[in-house]
Amino acid sequence: MMNLSKRITSMQESPIRKLVPYAQAAKANGKKVYHLNIGQPDIETPSSFMEAIRNFDEKVLAYSLSQGMPELIDSMIDYYKKYDMHFENDEILITNGGSEALLFAMIAVADAGDEVLVPEPFYTNYNGFTSAVDVKVVPITCKAEEGFHLPNRKSIEDIINPKTKAIMLSNPGNPTGVVYTKEEIHMLADLAKEYNLFILADEVYREFVYDGLEYTSFGNIKEIQDRVVIIDSVSKRYSACGARIGSVACKNKELIKEVLKLCQGRLCVPTLEQVGAIELYKTPESYFKTVNKEYEKRRDIVYTELNKMPGVLCKKPTGAFYVAAKLPVDDAEKFVIWMLKDFDIDGETLMMAPAEGFYATPGLGKDEVRIAYVLNEDDLMKSMNLLKVALELYPNKTI
Amino acid sequence: MMNLSKRITSMQESPIRKLVPYAQAAKANGKKVYHLNIGQPDIETPSSFMEAIRNFDEKVLAYSLSQGMPELIDSMIDYYKKYDMHFENDEILITNGGSEALLFAMIAVADAGDEVLVPEPFYTNYNGFTSAVDVKVVPITCKAEEGFHLPNRKSIEDIINPKTKAIMLSNPGNPTGVVYTKEEIHMLADLAKEYNLFILADEVYREFVYDGLEYTSFGNIKEIQDRVVIIDSVSKRYSACGARIGSVACKNKELIKEVLKLCQGRLCVPTLEQVGAIELYKTPESYFKTVNKEYEKRRDIVYTELNKMPGVLCKKPTGAFYVAAKLPVDDAEKFVIWMLKDFDIDGETLMMAPAEGFYATPGLGKDEVRIAYVLNEDDLMKSMNLLKVALELYPNKTI
Repeated sequence: MMNLSKRITSMQESPIRKLVPYAQAAKANGKKVYHLNIGQPDIETPSSFMEAIRNFDEKVLAYSLSQGMPELIDSMIDYYKKYDMHFENDEILITNGGSEALLFAMIAVADAGDEVLVPEPFYTNYNGFTSAVDVKVVPITCKAEEGFHLPNRKSIEDIINPKTKAIMLSNPGNPTGVVYTKEEIHMLADLAKEYNLFILADEVYREFVYDGLEYTSFGNIKEIQDRVVIIDSVSKRYSACGARIGSVACKNKELIKEVLKLCQGRLCVPTLEQVGAIELYKTPESYFKTVNKEYEKRRDIVYTELNKMPGVLCKKPTGAFYVAAKLPVDDAEKFVIWMLKDFDIDGETLMMAPAEGFYATPGLGKDEVRIAYVLNEDDLMKSMNLLKVALELYPNKTI
Repeated sequence: MMNLSKRITSMQESPIRKLVPYAQAAKANGKKVYHLNIGQPDIETPSSFMEAIRNFDEKVLAYSLSQGMPELIDSMIDYYKKYDMHFENDEILITNGGSEALLFAMIAVADAGDEVLVPEPFYTNYNGFTSAVDVKVVPITCKAEEGFHLPNRKSIEDIINPKTKAIMLSNPGNPTGVVYTKEEIHMLADLAKEYNLFILADEVYREFVYDGLEYTSFGNIKEIQDRVVIIDSVSKRYSACGARIGSVACKNKELIKEVLKLCQGRLCVPTLEQVGAIELYKTPESYFKTVNKEYEKRRDIVYTELNKMPGVLCKKPTGAFYVAAKLPVDDAEKFVIWMLKDFDIDGETLMMAPAEGFYATPGLGKDEVRIAYVLNEDDLMKSMNLLKVALELYPNKTI
């Protein structure tokens, strides 16, 4: 019998993807499943992406540079300028999706056994990256009742110790849709300065902010630029999840130089996807206005309908395209499975992501789900109706 | 002052890529540089790759499955059958290049502090993967004088201890061009069985075997299939280095299931590159015959010319497209830099990879280089002439 490593066997399965077999079975039984479980937008990818790729005509599909194609880095530099972030050529690295960017940043700032603070609930794959490289996630618990905003400074200071190397967070938040206030961002910036921590700022949803809210990027706080690592991706920004083009941007040239070694180790990011991404980052800002209007409408539907359902708790999310909601059920995972296996209206049902896997603290999130509002208005309305009826019929409801 | 992790700061820079700035400077000064330093073939990528991609017409570039596109896995299953390796759907995972496959396999079989045996000189990026995840490379030293074949069984047994989890090797070998004999492969298989080790078999050069030699894959030794992890890639096989499509294949379903968690953590491999790779793996075998004939010719040129140069030691390599040669110089890295900075004939010079970085044992390989014979015959002849003259003129030659 072969022994696999402890770090891999102890790694959590993706809570977003582990229920996929139930969805497949439901479909095999002829059910239609509305997928609100995964952040796969239905928005069209800007056509400039495929156009650029179709025009690629080199005879040999060669390695590109480990740091990324210079034209793509230039294109990103121009993009960041619009947000008053100013990077030089040697301060940006192109990665295989935001995922690799997070993994590489983690390896760069933390040794095996070190700790990283993360507001929970958090993007569940943070768990995967950290266990793969033996870093411990220490959660900053946030609550549905408070719209998942941060707790006070003192309660964060209490969990900082000499092993703490960084604060990692997504803003706007996945899975909560929270947009942290200017005060919250500055509070974390101060903590980072005082305790000599890095900030791994996952800002892949930067543009997805609603209600005319102000967005504060860690990239805008001048005095901590040596400790801020900005993680980005084209996946959500341009609805190009299958392109897997992410990036690490950091004014700390030493960090970039070190992460470049990891980039060299995996040689390069796919050439064609970069050729397409160069054009994506030139997409005019009007694109975001149109897309945001659409998401804001969807957010309103989901939020309004959820709040009509008895026993459901959900503060109004203001960013990304997720809602985390407390449901009146014994166990959200069981409920999601029940909806796939034992429930339908006219052959239709709904899939959501149970939120327990988004928490590091055992027991939290058991009655919560994440809903990704990535479907059109009609489908969302149908989905919310399905949820409403399901909550009435579910045998293990708690109200 | 921010502290980066020890594991990243102690990581070796890629010896293949770290001298690139010297090459760039040489070019800026108007020199033509023949690149024999990097395994970037000049062979055309089969046109089926771009054709498939150009025909892709989904409006939304969505995530693909974490394990890889089913059609690509099917295409690979058919490919392996030709080599009498028989994998099922749930025994293959598609990765971001062979690099990610190696990294994931390493995480799966070894915890932080564990050891992996690797014949040295070895593919230098093995160093990067292992330090990133805190695994120690323990070298099995092989010698230029012996054509880089393995030492005897006893000397390998001597370095196995309870922390040893796997033997990792590329066959045919990068950077040596060695093709291990059937006896060598079986000897390692026996050791793996006796000491309960995994074998991470990097077989990305499987088709690049010359002189009509027999090739033995670890995938063909039935009794150890629960401990063999086959790493593959389209990069060299189909001259598609920029596609970054690799794979992990293993009959141990438990290992695949665990590695799938890592795959889920990074969501998926680019969709378009997989669409192209499906076609690559259907390339008829006649393609390899043509390509191999070309490489065999080039190998002959390089080997013959090297052996005419006084003081150069190089046994005939029989696979991949590399030659590792001992040169009569004080320090191969200094020599390579000197060729880029201070040497040229009619404005032309040559770049090779100094081999010291391919060794884990300090001091070894200092007078060795790796030459990748990835240029056409004319350019190779010119390159060999440049090397011959450079060795005569180099101020710190040792003969």
